[in-house]
Amino acid sequence: MRVAIVGATGAVGHELLKVLEGSTLQFDELLLFASPRSAGSTLPFRGQDLTVQVTPEGAIDAELILASAGGSISKEKAPAWVAGGAVVIDNSSAFRYDPEVPLVVPEVNGEAALSHKGIIANPNCTTAIAVVAVAPIHRAYGVRRMIVSTYQATSGAGAKGMDELLQETHKVLHGQEAGAEVFAHPIPFNVIPHIDAFQDNGYTKEEMKVAWETRKIIGDESLKISCTAVRIPTLRTHSEAITLELERPATPEEVRALLAGAAGVEVRDTPAEKLYPMPLTASGKYNVEVGRIRPSLVFDGGIDLFVAGDQLLKGAALNAVQIAEYLQQKGALKARTQV
Amino acid sequence: MRVAIVGATGAVGHELLKVLEGSTLQFDELLLFASPRSAGSTLPFRGQDLTVQVTPEGAIDAELILASAGGSISKEKAPAWVAGGAVVIDNSSAFRYDPEVPLVVPEVNGEAALSHKGIIANPNCTTAIAVVAVAPIHRAYGVRRMIVSTYQATSGAGAKGMDELLQETHKVLHGQEAGAEVFAHPIPFNVIPHIDAFQDNGYTKEEMKVAWETRKIIGDESLKISCTAVRIPTLRTHSEAITLELERPATPEEVRALLAGAAGVEVRDTPAEKLYPMPLTASGKYNVEVGRIRPSLVFDGGIDLFVAGDQLLKGAALNAVQIAEYLQQKGALKARTQV
Repeated sequence: MRVAIVGATGAVGHELLKVLEGSTLQFDELLLFASPRSAGSTLPFRGQDLTVQVTPEGAIDAELILASAGGSISKEKAPAWVAGGAVVIDNSSAFRYDPEVPLVVPEVNGEAALSHKGIIANPNCTTAIAVVAVAPIHRAYGVRRMIVSTYQATSGAGAKGMDELLQETHKVLHGQEAGAEVFAHPIPFNVIPHIDAFQDNGYTKEEMKVAWETRKIIGDESLKISCTAVRIPTLRTHSEAITLELERPATPEEVRALLAGAAGVEVRDTPAEKLYPMPLTASGKYNVEVGRIRPSLVFDGGIDLFVAGDQLLKGAALNAVQIAEYLQQKGALKARTQV
Repeated sequence: MRVAIVGATGAVGHELLKVLEGSTLQFDELLLFASPRSAGSTLPFRGQDLTVQVTPEGAIDAELILASAGGSISKEKAPAWVAGGAVVIDNSSAFRYDPEVPLVVPEVNGEAALSHKGIIANPNCTTAIAVVAVAPIHRAYGVRRMIVSTYQATSGAGAKGMDELLQETHKVLHGQEAGAEVFAHPIPFNVIPHIDAFQDNGYTKEEMKVAWETRKIIGDESLKISCTAVRIPTLRTHSEAITLELERPATPEEVRALLAGAAGVEVRDTPAEKLYPMPLTASGKYNVEVGRIRPSLVFDGGIDLFVAGDQLLKGAALNAVQIAEYLQQKGALKARTQV
């Protein structure tokens, strides 16, 4: 099997290479594609230097394509890739709300991936991180309402987001004024409650993605979800404060025990030892840290919690590779590629 | 009238001097007190250099004392100050939950200050900032549930908190590892969901302060409030994402109009022009910025909003001086000091 990464030189592409290096996914060859600007450069993979090629116009000669070059490129090119026989796992938002396209977090709804028609969508990073913690609680206790406030890292805007934070922070520390190109305002020592475009209802698209995508992945359109999405001056890992109203009351002890056995989750919840989720400890980790599990003070029997997950990993590259691994384990990847 | 500041050399003390400089409060002399370590230093005030004295053991010869030297000093010394005839406006949490002590945000419950028995408590910074926005909404529409997630600046831990952020960030930018003395973990490019001590219910004291104090200031013990208090790498100004369930449905337009006429609030809510509350714009401002006003997606007729307020000003120094101004306007300060 040949695997292709489209958008190999971006922040997520970089993580895709690292995750694939340690992955159990069986494949013979890895092809790297990016924009003409990056073509010709090489990236190391399992001891070899792979040359980055320009993303071609039409089909790609690969059975699996991991696309992470943005929504417009996916929208434009994915149909040709699928027509060429590839399965596409797409990291953009281009196809997430298409009822024909499964939106998959393997720990939650892996089986949905099996019904794909060529494209499988990888969820928004904030959603993927929240849903590994919330889905087990939903199954056991029935989530009715979910209120999320996010603390999102600059790498959510790609490598250039991180670069801007570092460069502009350096300026501030040397008495200069910080500028902004990637973000709407200077990000050093600031908080920007604005990620993605504003919608007619006053929410940003980032905020609505959390509502739309969580419902689709969990498979319950009755779930009431609201989100406030906020960019903060961190490099990596999104954190989220989550309040849950439950149909059946849960205690923190029950939820802690439940999540201790949940795939993709690391319960980190020993306040007396100052152990709780943080970017400092969650960055680079495959599992999402979950802690601050406590009884809701506004919903009887509800639960509050705090999560921190590396959004370049579980929120993007890792989840995409896990979908591929799941398909291969189920024989679904091979079957299709041999058509 | 003589006014004394106890804790004059701290972050809040510094702001108290600045706010008093521009205040309408009438007084003849300003006395500055601090710990022996800071005694002898001078601070500029209205063109003079005032010498900082060691906080005395017993009474202070002043009619008004603005105390901002921490809870243990207030607890220990305030009774003697009151016995000596002073009115004490205390910025610590020492007396806030004493039913005999009014807890005051002048825009919300100024009249409560008039019933003091010597001590008036200044609320927790996070609470003061939230309540100027929420109280008018409560009066008009009846808040039933309030869910708060905070984005708190390092200066909430005093000048030393800011210093640690700047110094340790400098280290990280130069390839060194960040340390932590003021905070529980390194704060540069990190998020720490831990402010003040953990309580038996799993919430921190900072989080419970928001619930306890908001109810006391608004005067409604039936209000259900929960908070997640999070320290982030900013210097100044606390931001808060707030979700409100209301008894009577409100539209964003109604709330915007209501808050446009509310004291202490600046409505900053034009997303199309990238205008919303941020530390970058709220720092140094007396009014609390309120924006991102939108319909709740989890409570029919409820409201979500985002606030940013300078916690050294409205959350501390400014509110204390406003209480003093209110007392003087009502003749309550003079009346007491002439006893």
